[in-house]
Amino acid sequence: MTLAALGEDALVARLLRGLPPGADVLAGPGDDCAIIGRPRDRRWLLLKTDCVIESVHFPADTDPRRVGWKALCRAISDVAAMGGEPRHALITVAVPGDRPVAWLESLYAGLRKAARRFGVGVVGGETARSPGAVFINVALTGEVERTCCVRRSSGRAGDALYVTGRLGGSLAGKHLDFTPRLAEARWLAANFRPHAMMDLSDGLAADLPRLAAASGCAFSLDPAAIPRTRGCSVEQALGDGEDYELLFAIGERNAAPLERAWQKAFPRLPLTCIGRLNPQSAIRNPQSRLRGFDHFRQTI
Amino acid sequence: MTLAALGEDALVARLLRGLPPGADVLAGPGDDCAIIGRPRDRRWLLLKTDCVIESVHFPADTDPRRVGWKALCRAISDVAAMGGEPRHALITVAVPGDRPVAWLESLYAGLRKAARRFGVGVVGGETARSPGAVFINVALTGEVERTCCVRRSSGRAGDALYVTGRLGGSLAGKHLDFTPRLAEARWLAANFRPHAMMDLSDGLAADLPRLAAASGCAFSLDPAAIPRTRGCSVEQALGDGEDYELLFAIGERNAAPLERAWQKAFPRLPLTCIGRLNPQSAIRNPQSRLRGFDHFRQTI
Repeated sequence: MTLAALGEDALVARLLRGLPPGADVLAGPGDDCAIIGRPRDRRWLLLKTDCVIESVHFPADTDPRRVGWKALCRAISDVAAMGGEPRHALITVAVPGDRPVAWLESLYAGLRKAARRFGVGVVGGETARSPGAVFINVALTGEVERTCCVRRSSGRAGDALYVTGRLGGSLAGKHLDFTPRLAEARWLAANFRPHAMMDLSDGLAADLPRLAAASGCAFSLDPAAIPRTRGCSVEQALGDGEDYELLFAIGERNAAPLERAWQKAFPRLPLTCIGRLNPQSAIRNPQSRLRGFDHFRQTI
Repeated sequence: MTLAALGEDALVARLLRGLPPGADVLAGPGDDCAIIGRPRDRRWLLLKTDCVIESVHFPADTDPRRVGWKALCRAISDVAAMGGEPRHALITVAVPGDRPVAWLESLYAGLRKAARRFGVGVVGGETARSPGAVFINVALTGEVERTCCVRRSSGRAGDALYVTGRLGGSLAGKHLDFTPRLAEARWLAANFRPHAMMDLSDGLAADLPRLAAASGCAFSLDPAAIPRTRGCSVEQALGDGEDYELLFAIGERNAAPLERAWQKAFPRLPLTCIGRLNPQSAIRNPQSRLRGFDHFRQTI
């Protein structure tokens, strides 16, 4: 069987079977970040690795500054989705030997801009020669107060489901220029303790079923309620991917207070209730056949 | 200017200029690992990222089990060289979509074997589609007691220089099957406090000048003393690279006691004095024109 036939979720599950768990691992593969620490520690360490690849995650003629921004901000978005703060990054870049140094310097200018903006220290930079495409890997650590840590797997039946911002149309440019919702996620974690949260990287159609499944819930989704980028269809909002908005589940009675407080805290960023988590015996996720971005099934 | 013309060391130095330092960074780029912590903490966090790329670091027809072993063991070797213990790893693998799943499963079997052997918890596994070559990135954390941490930059004039094992001939297979010198490095750090240490990844001819320069020293090297893999010339021992042996500098009066104790602790692994660190005004490193492996200058 080939990778394209199996798909990413099934593949990762299969590969990670039988791996040694390691000490102090509170959450391993399967959430936005791994969580390292002891249950009663005041703060936990978050770990994330993520890559962007030329002609998969960005076209070859993309401004390298935007590529650098995207590479670091994708990982920052994952740390944010756990309720955490990013700390230190290690960058690996593999490029063909005939690439002008100026290209790499522009890439690093983009990385540096994101690092400054979100308080990340870049503590290591590996370079290697690539026989083909450019490959950039970011390994990022974060910290989260135990009381602020939000997992993907703790949603409860009855929770209201919210998304930030507007979805769809990422390829028009948003996938290179997005702002990770770090401030918003920290605010949510500190003030409203969502039960479950993740960032939307593969599209709502792929990511919402993941959050629901991890939480042992079914879900209902109101397609008409999905906040869409101007000019986008519901299908695009569901399936384009690379929105890097937050998806979270919050207790129903917190919904109204949240909406009022959000309006004051982030008046320029929409927050939209798009559905709810249900007991697993309820509606069998009619939308789950809609597909988001699968790394082995779609190309940009 | 192209990357091949500039070379890796100059390139990394140039790229990392002006990057925000980040809080709690005791050592950033330039050593085998970054060191995170506060000066008086009992234990520090080590961070390392490293990649192996098809047709750069391994031929395309290599047994994927050996590739997985190598990918993780390279990073373990870097943590060992700081005197630390590896803790948690995040794996990124980019492969063409038509690669059989069995290939990836074998790769993970090799990763798993190394993780078990050296006590590493694999806490995350990303997969992505590669448009060409296979690319594997390992991000590894480690821990080191403050009193055991050995940097590359603390060598002193007069120190004796030692290497473990035998150098050269890595392409005959050792580069895929080497054993990171974790036990040896921990023993050295705990019992003999080397002033400076690193692992030999690019060859003694490239790595020794790095250790000396980081320590603000010159060095003298006795080429005849270099322990060579059977059948290798001095040039091969200096320049082949990928030895993954330890190079360290230790106070002269510790040299004799070290050699006696080593013989008892690791009777099957040679330990060889190959030279010494000198004041910077002394011999101007006549060997420094010999080149080891530069990622932009050589191919396997």
